[in-house]
Amino acid sequence: MAHNVLPQPVQRLIDEFARLPGIGPKSASRLTFFLLRGAENQALELASALQELQARTRFCSVCFNITEMDPCVVCEDSGRDPNLLCVVEEPLDLLAIERSRAFNGRYHVLHGAISPVEGVGPEDLRVAELVERVQGGTFREIILATNPTLEGESTALYLQRRLAGTKVKITRLARGLPIGGDLEYTDEITLSRALEGRQEFS
Amino acid sequence: MAHNVLPQPVQRLIDEFARLPGIGPKSASRLTFFLLRGAENQALELASALQELQARTRFCSVCFNITEMDPCVVCEDSGRDPNLLCVVEEPLDLLAIERSRAFNGRYHVLHGAISPVEGVGPEDLRVAELVERVQGGTFREIILATNPTLEGESTALYLQRRLAGTKVKITRLARGLPIGGDLEYTDEITLSRALEGRQEFS
Repeated sequence: MAHNVLPQPVQRLIDEFARLPGIGPKSASRLTFFLLRGAENQALELASALQELQARTRFCSVCFNITEMDPCVVCEDSGRDPNLLCVVEEPLDLLAIERSRAFNGRYHVLHGAISPVEGVGPEDLRVAELVERVQGGTFREIILATNPTLEGESTALYLQRRLAGTKVKITRLARGLPIGGDLEYTDEITLSRALEGRQEFS
Repeated sequence: MAHNVLPQPVQRLIDEFARLPGIGPKSASRLTFFLLRGAENQALELASALQELQARTRFCSVCFNITEMDPCVVCEDSGRDPNLLCVVEEPLDLLAIERSRAFNGRYHVLHGAISPVEGVGPEDLRVAELVERVQGGTFREIILATNPTLEGESTALYLQRRLAGTKVKITRLARGLPIGGDLEYTDEITLSRALEGRQEFS
């Protein structure tokens, strides 16, 4: 009789890998067999890292940055300008801006950008929380630091409309950023220039 | 003060993902943030699948196929021809041959192919175990079913030399046109092999 199925634990791991973005069935098999053959305990190390991620990290209840403590260290830092708010798509974007050392205000992490193609609407992002925070806060300026991509621009435009009634000055990063690029990997000088040259949203 | 490091559990998972083949630092970040945002408990599901893989699977001590029981179901199947041995690179190759239903003998899984470029030598594969198995066994024919690639061909050549003293008949899979293929689009090397291996019309 032909023996034509993988052991269930092998098939299960292939299926789990294939659920991740950018990993197809072939890559999922390759990763699984790499771990099967592999380097002592690498599968268990990865499992433990996944469990630790789930157990020890959360979103900051103020800015939605990823953090071990709530509120996060940025929100807890009293040396930061409470009148300035920078809105980013992802936690890694926040880190990139921090590395530029050109910003000393507060942040708000959206966790994505509006993308009709991928079915991501404003209700999937931290937009309601942003509007509430701005309405109830002391912010004088909001920098929309979304990515210089189609999705990022749409998101900025949408936010500008949603925040139009609040009388807060709305700016966005200067076009020092190359269109189609990725904020996370932009060098520090370019990011500094983009922050310095920010312009009023019109 | 600039806050410019990721929480340690996040960085740890990025590092673990980046150790996997074909996943660079950027993909590793993307996977990690996908899981952070993600679908309820997907990180824990993946962790559990990894632990189950480690706990419930092993290599068959006879043929080195991946299995939950040792020996594996193929080795335990008394209905299979004990004189015929098929040598493959990977467990997935074994499954592909099983799906063809054209083979009813035994298997031996090498777990790779000889590749000087990637630093894989015969000592990294289950070659010694193969030689021992053939010398101590009742095999009359060994089919070297390695892949039709440079590495697979080198491996087959090496095995043919190592097994030359055993008087067992050594064969390999036919090279030729794939069924359903198109002669016009077939590459030159495949066409050369198909011509060399031409057979009398019967």
